[in-house]
Amino acid sequence: MKYDFSSDYCELAHPLVLEALSAVGNTQFEGYGLDEFSAQAADMVREKISAPSADVHFIGGGTHANQVVISSALRPHEAVIAPQTGHIYVHEAGAIEATGHKICIVEGENGKLRPFEIEAVVKDHCDEHMVKPRLVYVSQSTERGTVYTKAELSAISECCGANGLYLFLDGARLCPAINSHACDLSYGDVAELTDAFYLGGTKNGAMLGEAIVITCDEIKADFRFHLKQRGAMLAKGAAIGIQFGALLKDGLQDKLAIHAISMAMKLADGVSGAGYGMLCPAETNMVFPVFPAKTAEKLHGLYGFHDWSKNGDMTAVRLVTSWATPESAVDGFLEDLRAL
Amino acid sequence: MKYDFSSDYCELAHPLVLEALSAVGNTQFEGYGLDEFSAQAADMVREKISAPSADVHFIGGGTHANQVVISSALRPHEAVIAPQTGHIYVHEAGAIEATGHKICIVEGENGKLRPFEIEAVVKDHCDEHMVKPRLVYVSQSTERGTVYTKAELSAISECCGANGLYLFLDGARLCPAINSHACDLSYGDVAELTDAFYLGGTKNGAMLGEAIVITCDEIKADFRFHLKQRGAMLAKGAAIGIQFGALLKDGLQDKLAIHAISMAMKLADGVSGAGYGMLCPAETNMVFPVFPAKTAEKLHGLYGFHDWSKNGDMTAVRLVTSWATPESAVDGFLEDLRAL
Amino acid sequence: MKYDFSSDYCELAHPLVLEALSAVGNTQFEGYGLDEFSAQAADMVREKISAPSADVHFIGGGTHANQVVISSALRPHEAVIAPQTGHIYVHEAGAIEATGHKICIVEGENGKLRPFEIEAVVKDHCDEHMVKPRLVYVSQSTERGTVYTKAELSAISECCGANGLYLFLDGARLCPAINSHACDLSYGDVAELTDAFYLGGTKNGAMLGEAIVITCDEIKADFRFHLKQRGAMLAKGAAIGIQFGALLKDGLQDKLAIHAISMAMKLADGVSGAGYGMLCPAETNMVFPVFPAKTAEKLHGLYGFHDWSKNGDMTAVRLVTSWATPESAVDGFLEDLRAL
Amino acid sequence: MKYDFSSDYCELAHPLVLEALSAVGNTQFEGYGLDEFSAQAADMVREKISAPSADVHFIGGGTHANQVVISSALRPHEAVIAPQTGHIYVHEAGAIEATGHKICIVEGENGKLRPFEIEAVVKDHCDEHMVKPRLVYVSQSTERGTVYTKAELSAISECCGANGLYLFLDGARLCPAINSHACDLSYGDVAELTDAFYLGGTKNGAMLGEAIVITCDEIKADFRFHLKQRGAMLAKGAAIGIQFGALLKDGLQDKLAIHAISMAMKLADGVSGAGYGMLCPAETNMVFPVFPAKTAEKLHGLYGFHDWSKNGDMTAVRLVTSWATPESAVDGFLEDLRAL
Repeated sequence: MKYDFSSDYCELAHPLVLEALSAVGNTQFEGYGLDEFSAQAADMVREKISAPSADVHFIGGGTHANQVVISSALRPHEAVIAPQTGHIYVHEAGAIEATGHKICIVEGENGKLRPFEIEAVVKDHCDEHMVKPRLVYVSQSTERGTVYTKAELSAISECCGANGLYLFLDGARLCPAINSHACDLSYGDVAELTDAFYLGGTKNGAMLGEAIVITCDEIKADFRFHLKQRGAMLAKGAAIGIQFGALLKDGLQDKLAIHAISMAMKLADGVSGAGYGMLCPAETNMVFPVFPAKTAEKLHGLYGFHDWSKNGDMTAVRLVTSWATPESAVDGFLEDLRAL
Repeated sequence: MKYDFSSDYCELAHPLVLEALSAVGNTQFEGYGLDEFSAQAADMVREKISAPSADVHFIGGGTHANQVVISSALRPHEAVIAPQTGHIYVHEAGAIEATGHKICIVEGENGKLRPFEIEAVVKDHCDEHMVKPRLVYVSQSTERGTVYTKAELSAISECCGANGLYLFLDGARLCPAINSHACDLSYGDVAELTDAFYLGGTKNGAMLGEAIVITCDEIKADFRFHLKQRGAMLAKGAAIGIQFGALLKDGLQDKLAIHAISMAMKLADGVSGAGYGMLCPAETNMVFPVFPAKTAEKLHGLYGFHDWSKNGDMTAVRLVTSWATPESAVDGFLEDLRAL
Repeated sequence: MKYDFSSDYCELAHPLVLEALSAVGNTQFEGYGLDEFSAQAADMVREKISAPSADVHFIGGGTHANQVVISSALRPHEAVIAPQTGHIYVHEAGAIEATGHKICIVEGENGKLRPFEIEAVVKDHCDEHMVKPRLVYVSQSTERGTVYTKAELSAISECCGANGLYLFLDGARLCPAINSHACDLSYGDVAELTDAFYLGGTKNGAMLGEAIVITCDEIKADFRFHLKQRGAMLAKGAAIGIQFGALLKDGLQDKLAIHAISMAMKLADGVSGAGYGMLCPAETNMVFPVFPAKTAEKLHGLYGFHDWSKNGDMTAVRLVTSWATPESAVDGFLEDLRAL
Repeated sequence: MKYDFSSDYCELAHPLVLEALSAVGNTQFEGYGLDEFSAQAADMVREKISAPSADVHFIGGGTHANQVVISSALRPHEAVIAPQTGHIYVHEAGAIEATGHKICIVEGENGKLRPFEIEAVVKDHCDEHMVKPRLVYVSQSTERGTVYTKAELSAISECCGANGLYLFLDGARLCPAINSHACDLSYGDVAELTDAFYLGGTKNGAMLGEAIVITCDEIKADFRFHLKQRGAMLAKGAAIGIQFGALLKDGLQDKLAIHAISMAMKLADGVSGAGYGMLCPAETNMVFPVFPAKTAEKLHGLYGFHDWSKNGDMTAVRLVTSWATPESAVDGFLEDLRAL
């Protein structure tokens, strides 16, 4: 069985998460996320992000989180601004458009949006023959594994404020981003600079679950109706609250992210040391080496991973590490690479 | 802590389900439901329902299942026929309408739809100034805990066939229905008589999860796109496959349903024995006693449950049992009732 | 060729309306409703309804007006309250649901909604498992040709205010309503008591066109985006502005309505005089006699009209008069009826 | 009053169109487009396009036509392929996305889509994490006034067929395209090569109205429901049928287009003769001269027209001619230009 670097959702859940679920036994709880487990986990989230008045809602997955937040925040004619690499634009099967909203894309750089691009979209959309941009979507870390610095996110936040735009941050991989050497943002900074974001569980040790955080009053209003209407309100919402309780206890989620990052850095160093380039800087738990196509092909025989893009005879591949990646798998990969 | 008869989703999951999840360890699997656990569980479902060519998709919850199936099956102008008590009409925050489709309601009887009601809707909708009925929605068991017999469901199925209507069955509580004394339908009958249905896990021992079964080729086509677009495709789809594997092993789901039903029957017998009437026949794991308002009020001080409807000084309440309901709770309730 | 009492849109347009269109010649104007003709007509509407700060937008038809106003006013989880006879519920092919919103229906009386029915819906919709009622839809005159009095509409308006509901009035037949003997409302009253309404042109002398009037600031915001997005912004918006200019000049629209009503009253009197009953009081330009089925059938051989409902051997039919109905057609009908 | 070259919808309607409307008098007709005028006009369209079994539906405007056709043809997960200059992507306020569908854009050339671009989109959209391309949108003439040749449209049509894609052609300016010197397509070719298209009236002499033509059986089915649901079914549909009757009689629409083109060609020749370049070839009734910004500014003082794009100190402007453009306006413009 070859080791799989395809993604950070290849293993079910961290043992402490499963333990927490098993520990509940037949304790009865209220349905639809109104249970004590979820209430406590929400408190822990609020404390973690230093935002005592934030609303916290648990939801099963990231695409769903993006869809519910965005569709609840916008009037029908309002649109999203996103980089062309944004998950909502590329890999969510039109989930945003399915709720009626256009995504206005810009080029971005290494998966990151830049304030001048936002301003250009706003300026271009000048009358009622076009949609009205109203929300900016960023991912932290991005689809390229890169991170926004505090200066970068602050500039975007300011640009949004100046142009009447909501700022929403897709944090499916927020823990790896916050714990990256390249990132000087705290969880609290993210809460302060955005109107809403989510803190990912699925890709960082949970079986399923993301914690949606809303700091903007307009988006807070009636949010549970939207969760219900989009099928996102689990009867046993406690199942996610319990998991987040475990992830937030004693900083578990950060420890998991730190492990994932350190495995990625070791991979990146080894790949570079072997003389290969990178599609973009390795900053979190995703590494994008550029191999000759034949090398990539041979590696596919030994490990699981996705090809990301092709350029002539070169193939950029994506290697993802997780809380569960054993160092031996990384060592093996590098050894095999050098031996090719 | 008072015992809660509010619903069958008050406890997290059956121990064997949690065990199965824990047993997976760090085994790697493919994402988005394409894993081996889900494939095996799907095979077990197909065998259980004697439908070898059915498509099976696992999804997190019932509202979501209803929404994805219905919205994927209909063109924009097509509508659903449902009884006015139907979950999709009353308690899903407009999830169906949110995808653009009208629900045409009829009165029904004890939560059950009757063929003549379907025909009346079809006849009324005679031109393009009205929506075009295209799918009939039934629940088995119904919101009233009642069940369709084989004759009843066959008649509806025939009526659908004759009128070019899909038949979709909401099986959030299908196991309690199938195992009811009042029900002569097999799982295979349900698969044969409908175009699509789902087999509920959440309300019968799973932490979360429903198994959508599609037998109609038109609805099968591209179904995974719809799952993804509506946010219903979990990155770790295996989490549901594993649970269904456990529920289907050695008939666990039926054993759980049988326990729930037997607790409900004991409750029903006791309530009747104490001289109270019922809103409708007790057939599955939901019982609807009708108490004087004052009696209901006193019971609220001792047990958790929902009031269902009021009629003058009388209150119909809903008592729900589950796989986890201890017989002692039932005995206690009846004792307390007699002592009032 | 038999005379057609089917509707008030059987003739193209009043000669003065067509004259106004022809008078324009090759005068150039700005597109998309930003022309001088439309601006002047909007001023005339504002004066007519004594609402100098109202926004006025011209649109091609009534279903479209209902759809654009309602969908622009609501967030995704918000719903409409309407009588079960409401045009949006019955005869618009699901146009409201197609924009994602549920219509909560109540029984009504003679096509009219009553405040206690609104309150009952609001009270029933108590949590996020249900949609949130946000807008009340009434028609003046109603689908039954009846009218709300000032007291009735005031009570509804007050009830809406007390419950945080918008009040929207479908005025496809507002002119016949205002000019009815049964109606003590002025145009200004309608503007004052509602948040938005439309003043119908199509059914009262125009070739096409309705004037949407918005007095509520929240609904005013960005309304032209919604018009454009729903395909309702005509390149030559002037075509409607010019027609409304003609209809509002020298009270033409009221004169046309008065003629239509007087023809309907004559029909109603004659039918009653001949010994037949009515389904509901004749108050505007629609009359609903109840004939023995055989009588109705014979009349179908002589005149065009729609059957409305059946009750045993009796058939209620709908006779509609317009600005163009010649008195001779009414006399002929009554004569033929008496001769049957 | 300065002459306006802003668009081809600056004048109300050709005198023969208005005459035809006036000639109807008080003739009664059936509502909702089921009248004899529309039936005859539909026959004339079918004859004109040599497609006796095509379905023809009249609708008020182009954005609406695009929206109704596209939303009726697609299932929720299906998407449109369009050039980035496409009207539906840029200037319809998100009308397509509002019905739930993503538009996948490609670069195009001079407003025209190329088969290899279609194939690239199809190839990229390889699984259910992405939308599924299903319909190709082209405009003839394009937003740049350019036209597809028979070879070009045939290649696109073939590419669509090979990839299971519908081909839909936006023909708001189809008459000027067909009558262009650069276009070797007949109306019949357009009908044969596409699955649906519309023949524009609004921009070629009608007050309002486009004729939707459907040759594909799947799109034909239930189309009137979609018209109704999107608010596109006029009560007095005859109003459009009558206009098309006039436009199609004795080739009026072609005569009007020929005049518009000849005025545009004269403009283009004069502009070129005066030493200015063009943004793209002048092929129909739209001309895009590139002027120094100061020249453009001075011309704005004398004539109405839109700036199209800027490049350094140069401004590309759009000059549109219509059936109503007097030769004297063209002469005046050229004279003024030369005098600057």
